Order: sequence, then structure tokens, then C-alpha cells
Amino acid sequence: MHTRLLDSEDVDENARMIDVIDAVEAAFAAFERGTTQMPAKSYIDLPQYNGDFRSMPAYLETDDWDAAGVKWVNVHPDNPRDHDLPTVLGTMIYSDPETAFPLAIMDGTELTMKRTGAAAAVATDYLAREDASSLGIVGAGVQSYTQLEAIAAVRPIEEVVVSDLDEERLERFVDAFAGEFDIRSGSISEAGHCDVLSTVTPVEDPIVGVDDVGESTHVNAIGADAAGKHELSDELLESATVVIDDHEQCTHSGEINVPYAAGVLTDADIHAEIGEIVTGAVSGRTDETGVTVFDSTGLAIQDVAAARVVYENALEDEDGYEFGMIDA
Amino acid sequence: MHTRLLDSEDVDENARMIDVIDAVEAAFAAFERGTTQMPAKSYIDLPQYNGDFRSMPAYLETDDWDAAGVKWVNVHPDNPRDHDLPTVLGTMIYSDPETAFPLAIMDGTELTMKRTGAAAAVATDYLAREDASSLGIVGAGVQSYTQLEAIAAVRPIEEVVVSDLDEERLERFVDAFAGEFDIRSGSISEAGHCDVLSTVTPVEDPIVGVDDVGESTHVNAIGADAAGKHELSDELLESATVVIDDHEQCTHSGEINVPYAAGVLTDADIHAEIGEIVTGAVSGRTDETGVTVFDSTGLAIQDVAAARVVYENALEDEDGYEFGMIDA
Repeated sequence: MHTRLLDSEDVDENARMIDVIDAVEAAFAAFERGTTQMPAKSYIDLPQYNGDFRSMPAYLETDDWDAAGVKWVNVHPDNPRDHDLPTVLGTMIYSDPETAFPLAIMDGTELTMKRTGAAAAVATDYLAREDASSLGIVGAGVQSYTQLEAIAAVRPIEEVVVSDLDEERLERFVDAFAGEFDIRSGSISEAGHCDVLSTVTPVEDPIVGVDDVGESTHVNAIGADAAGKHELSDELLESATVVIDDHEQCTHSGEINVPYAAGVLTDADIHAEIGEIVTGAVSGRTDETGVTVFDSTGLAIQDVAAARVVYENALEDEDGYEFGMIDA
Repeated sequence: MHTRLLDSEDVDENARMIDVIDAVEAAFAAFERGTTQMPAKSYIDLPQYNGDFRSMPAYLETDDWDAAGVKWVNVHPDNPRDHDLPTVLGTMIYSDPETAFPLAIMDGTELTMKRTGAAAAVATDYLAREDASSLGIVGAGVQSYTQLEAIAAVRPIEEVVVSDLDEERLERFVDAFAGEFDIRSGSISEAGHCDVLSTVTPVEDPIVGVDDVGESTHVNAIGADAAGKHELSDELLESATVVIDDHEQCTHSGEINVPYAAGVLTDADIHAEIGEIVTGAVSGRTDETGVTVFDSTGLAIQDVAAARVVYENALEDEDGYEFGMIDA
């Protein structure tokens, strides 16, 4: 037996967005139904290198399939400047739950972008207006590309407004999608008045206020990934219908962590976990719903679900390199 | 940059035992000095497949080097019968702590055998008689081969007595080493009266009693890896000088877990952690020492230390397959 090795290009090609969205939706549903195992992320802190490692093992069982694996990922913010390497470098081991055989080892960086986009798309599908045709994006970094790719798969997006302080990043983003969408740069408020908004920045002081969004905008808050980070003002969060991916992760390191720790936002202000909405236990957008916010921290089950899509598609297309790691 | 992929044969060739013993000794010392990070193993239990997954991330810093990585490993006892696969299938990701770049991905099964043998050798070096020349082995399975290989690297072993209920396993083991040692099969008591004894069985009822060992035998108790398992009788443990690798792991799932849980063995009966002996904080064998027991559960830092040896040697010899997982 062989282990399939998939590089970033293989992951990009085989993480077909429509499949990844389905898989992530199934993962959220499994999470709500309790057919997942997701031990707390283990951290290794390396202040001497201004970095850390995270180990994210998970197993999930949906109605149709089950899957297991671990993502080994890091955050080393000095990498681009000091080593010409990305800040985040992920490696995913995807295993057969029945035998534990490592079916595939793949680039976890590209995988993370795909599954993060897919999570926003699932939330957008349940929480944005049915006729949403405009998408705003605040922050034009590497994670933003899959926001547009994924959200356009669930809504008929025509108009895109992107906002970023860095002109070069902005231009690169606009150029990448100029053929596909009516895309332009704009202010945060212009982006926020689209039908859907994704915020993908690492800020610690909120940059999107309550007046920066439309009356029924759905906001995917993607950027916050550590205690102290948040992109949306407390006032905006308090007035919106707030949906989270996981209570523990969101209250510790997600968009809501700062106001939650301060007691400004409480459990009573949280409408639901996304799994409750996907399974129909709690309703998504109705005619009365105003602004909605999805606080996405990223769950290990999303990685495993997305890895399954990549593996199955790669197997069918015979993509990647077959490696005989184990003498079996 | 490329990630070096190393299969079981590459790991076997590059895990030069004398280097692995040095690395594991340095890891034990680092553990004692507090320059390691080893989050608790994360378990995923899959009763429907009679199996589990374990995620073992670790970082360690010795006087000369540091290293990081994660081992993703399992126990699926039905694998040999139902799937013609080993019970345990490990995969190790070895990363540069400074940048988190995955320097190597290697077979973790072969690696585990090497580092487990090396741990027994380190303990034997500090706890067995200087002139030890005979080695007994109880249990002739896959983990036993590196016991002999490693222990013979630290003591002038000439005579080997191996005990196992399975004739085929016994014969295979004897044949493997017939050219190198004066090796024969024997009873548990004959094995136990050697200068050094390694027990490598998964039993839940002790098979080695106090009369089965010599007056100054050093015992490496390797087999117990879960609550309820133990190979040595309570009487033997109580009368011996007991050294452990890690207090938490040993009292939960190591050789001493059953008598410890029953209150028969207490902290007062534990002589030291192996790191305390390696660093000289606590003495090893003296002229007055009788029987010694090393309770080895296996630490994630041993895997990382051994992986470093494999990677460095493989790099020098240009072994393995260079894979461009990440576009960097």
C-alpha cells in the first residue's frame, strides 16, 4: 500500500470548492449531532523564534462517510521577512479510520485556505439574503482569495468591492478576478454595504463599525485567531445575529473573544452554532433578520473533511506521488 | 525547499543506534532540566474499529541542538488479522523549530522501535552492572529486536536468552542474531537471571516474579502501554530500585500503573525519573544496588530526538525522496 503525497498545487486542483463546501457543511452537522472527536488543539510555544506549533487531530462521521487525520501547523510571523517562507506552514496526514493507514499526506496551507473559504460559504448559504449579488472583502491577503471563490459558489455574486491598506495586495487581488467579476477597490464602508462581507485581517482594534454595513448584510468574520484580536466593533456585534462555529474556540480566540471576556457580549447574544443551523435545529435568515455575523475560528474537522475531498478526487485522477512509507 | 520523505528502510538505515542512544539520553536530560515541551497525548477512540489514534507533539532543547515534531500513531489490534497490516502505524513529521518548515516526514513505526530500544540502552547504561555480558528477553515480537541491538551498544553482551510462547517468533529471533551472539531460547526465569532483562509483552497478569531474576539484574519493563497492563509481580517491583521515564505516563499506563493505582506501590517506592539519573541529580547503580527496574512508557521527545538523528544522517547521505510539498 502507498501513501499519496499531494503538494500545494495538487491540493488546489483537487479541493474542488463545491465538494469542499458540501464536506464542511456535513462536518458542521456531524459536530452538532455529536459524531465528531476533536481533542483540544495542543500548542507548543517558541518565544525564542516568535512562533508556535499547533497539533489538530480529529475524527468525524457523517451520514455517508467517516474520516480521520491530523494537521500540524504553525504561526511564525517573522518567516516572510527573515526566511522568505510563509508565516503559516501546514502539513496534513489523512488516515483511514478503520486501519489507521496514512492514505495521504498533503500541504495543509492550501487546504486551510480552502476549508476556511468553504466555512464562510456554508454560513453565507444559510445566513445571507437569497438574492445576494455583491460581496465586500476587507483584507486582500492570501486567505481572501478562497472567500470569493467559495462564496460565489453559493450566491450569484456579480459585484465585488475589496478594501486593503496595501496597494500592491489590492491590485493583485483585483487583477486575479477582473475577468470574472465586476471588481473594484473601495473603502471599508463600501465593502461593508455589499450583501455579503468577509473580513480577513489580523487587527486588534476593530475596523468595521455598525454604520459600515448594510441593513441586511451577512458578515463572515474570519481574521481573529487569537485572544485580543477582533475586526468588528462591539456595537455591530451587539446589534447583529451572531452565529459561531464552536463556543470554546470562539470565546477564547474568535471574533467575539474580546467583548465576551469583557462581559459586553454574553451567551444570550449568541444566536447559534453553525451546526445547529445546518441541521435545522435553529433557523437561519428569515424576512425579519437584519445583519448577521459568522464568527469562524476554523475547526480541525473542517481540515479532515476537506482532506477527504482532496484525497478522493486525487485518487480518481491519479494525482500526486505514491510513496511506500511503510513496508506493507 | 524540499521535505525529505523517509520510508521504513531509510529510517532503519539512518537511525544509527549509537546516535539514537545519545539523542535519547540528551532528551531525558532536557526533560529533567525543563527545556522540553510535551503536551499530553491526544487520543481519538474508535471502538467501532477496535482502534485509536494518538497525536504526540513535542519540542526539546539540549545543550547542542533543538528539534520539534509530531508523531501520529495508532493501535488497531485487528489490523494483522483483518487487513494484513501492522497493529501500529506511525507517521512522524519532523520540523525546523525556527521556521516550522517540515524538514522530513518519515515512517514512525520503525522510528518507535529504535527510540524504544535506545531508551532501554540509556537506562541499562546507568543501571546495569558495568560488566553485564548476558541479556534476557521475554517476548520475541517486533519491538524486541531493537532491545538487543541497543543494549549490546552499551554493554559487552555475549550471551542472550530469549523466552516466548510462540515457537515461530522464537526461532525467527534466534535466527536473526545467531551469528552475532551466543543466543538460545529458555524459560522466563533463565532469561531473568541474565545481567540485563528486557520484558516486551502485552500481558495483564505479571509473568516475571521476584525469584525469576538474579540478585543484581537490571530489568527494562517495556511492554505495559495501557492501564491494566503489567509484566512484573508487585513483589518484584517492591523489592527493586524503580526508575521511571515520566511520572504521569508511568502511573497511568506504565509498568507500575496497576500496583500504583492499588496503593501497593507509592511515590516513596520510585527511586527517580531517568532524567534525574542521566543528569547526575540522583545516583544510578552503586555497589549496594540489587535489582533495578526501568519503567519505559515512551515519551514524545524520544521520537523527536530520534527523528533528528534520522534526518541529519539521511541528509548527509542524500537518502530518501525530496518532495516539494510547499511552493517555497
